[in-house]
Amino acid sequence: MSAEAKLVEMGLELPEVTEALGSYVNAVRTGNLLFLSGGLPSDPERRFNGKVPSEVSVECAKAAARQAMLGRLAVIRRELGSLDRVARVVAVQGYVNSDPGFGDHPLVVNGASDLLIEVFGAEIGRHSRVAVGVGSLPLHVVVELALVVEVADDPAA
Amino acid sequence: MSAEAKLVEMGLELPEVTEALGSYVNAVRTGNLLFLSGGLPSDPERRFNGKVPSEVSVECAKAAARQAMLGRLAVIRRELGSLDRVARVVAVQGYVNSDPGFGDHPLVVNGASDLLIEVFGAEIGRHSRVAVGVGSLPLHVVVELALVVEVADDPAA
Amino acid sequence: MSAEAKLVEMGLELPEVTEALGSYVNAVRTGNLLFLSGGLPSDPERRFNGKVPSEVSVECAKAAARQAMLGRLAVIRRELGSLDRVARVVAVQGYVNSDPGFGDHPLVVNGASDLLIEVFGAEIGRHSRVAVGVGSLPLHVVVELALVVEVADDPAA
Repeated sequence: MSAEAKLVEMGLELPEVTEALGSYVNAVRTGNLLFLSGGLPSDPERRFNGKVPSEVSVECAKAAARQAMLGRLAVIRRELGSLDRVARVVAVQGYVNSDPGFGDHPLVVNGASDLLIEVFGAEIGRHSRVAVGVGSLPLHVVVELALVVEVADDPAA
Repeated sequence: MSAEAKLVEMGLELPEVTEALGSYVNAVRTGNLLFLSGGLPSDPERRFNGKVPSEVSVECAKAAARQAMLGRLAVIRRELGSLDRVARVVAVQGYVNSDPGFGDHPLVVNGASDLLIEVFGAEIGRHSRVAVGVGSLPLHVVVELALVVEVADDPAA
Repeated sequence: MSAEAKLVEMGLELPEVTEALGSYVNAVRTGNLLFLSGGLPSDPERRFNGKVPSEVSVECAKAAARQAMLGRLAVIRRELGSLDRVARVVAVQGYVNSDPGFGDHPLVVNGASDLLIEVFGAEIGRHSRVAVGVGSLPLHVVVELALVVEVADDPAA
């Protein structure tokens, strides 16, 4: 099943692409690689603000990571026209806003990784990953995600 | 206008390239991509030491980001012979040494992003970006920047 | 001397490759680039847990960085069949779990960089590098390392 078909089956809608918070853009393509900027979870209710685990639970932070990745998928679709143009998810960087004693960053970033495998399937969706704990993040969000994906050759080329 | 001509027009001189602070090099090229090491602002007066905002203001940290990017441009020129060999700035990583409650990292890293767009113009200079807050940085500087640029094909090739 | 021969000469054995701590994989290849996930030092005695310098000394953290890089080399060997397939170490990211006032991150990450140059020699092993101080890391380890390497063209291709 294609990634776009899978999104429909899952009943998921991608959020609107928000403009970058500075003098940069959401993604840049070089050759067959698309580098995405760090993305934050959309969060009108501010559930995803603060540090893990003192202010945001691991479960909530995991949901934020999934939400942030949905936003990144929206960027990929806008850049490429369709998620089905992704040949492989190459690398994910997960930055978790956490207390100094935290050690369960992988559980948080799994919210993003699991979504990638659900949407793209294991063959395309499995990725390399870095998960670290940072001391603060833009707008006080609990997680920021960046990634690199490989783009399939243009079928018309 | 070319990037090198623009630098002259802006009256900007690039700093000397400093040796890497360890057993590594300032940049590595693979294919058409040039990966630069993390760079610090040159700072003989130590204005750029400490954390944002308790020890260094956002405005000062933004100036540090611009200074650090000038140093990265110096590395690019040394590696490629000229800034005009840059086909596209692909990705910038900005690490901001900040207090745990800080949330305005994009304003700081804009100091670097704005410079890239001034020097290279929007078409080449617009880049993907990650901005995060870290708890400490080498030599206690307020900001560290790394980037990846795409190199134009060798005109002689 | 080849990297595999050098390992034998140095009397070094690579650790077993451990499964990734989440829904991702240890490495992804795209074109001639191999992106490795962030790796932790193997540490059955928990010598490498905590922050530099209050809980772990710089020297011990440097040993942890070397240990973590040995684990990354094991991943490279498993992915490529042999370390001798590495054409160039492109980029290393070193995340040091450190106290807010720490500034000697380069000394810590040199444990990894020095190993790369010992094993691969300067021509292949010299790499670009980012070293930053993070507030926490998975499993409370003192250092996490990721890297990107360029793979030599398949000799049979």
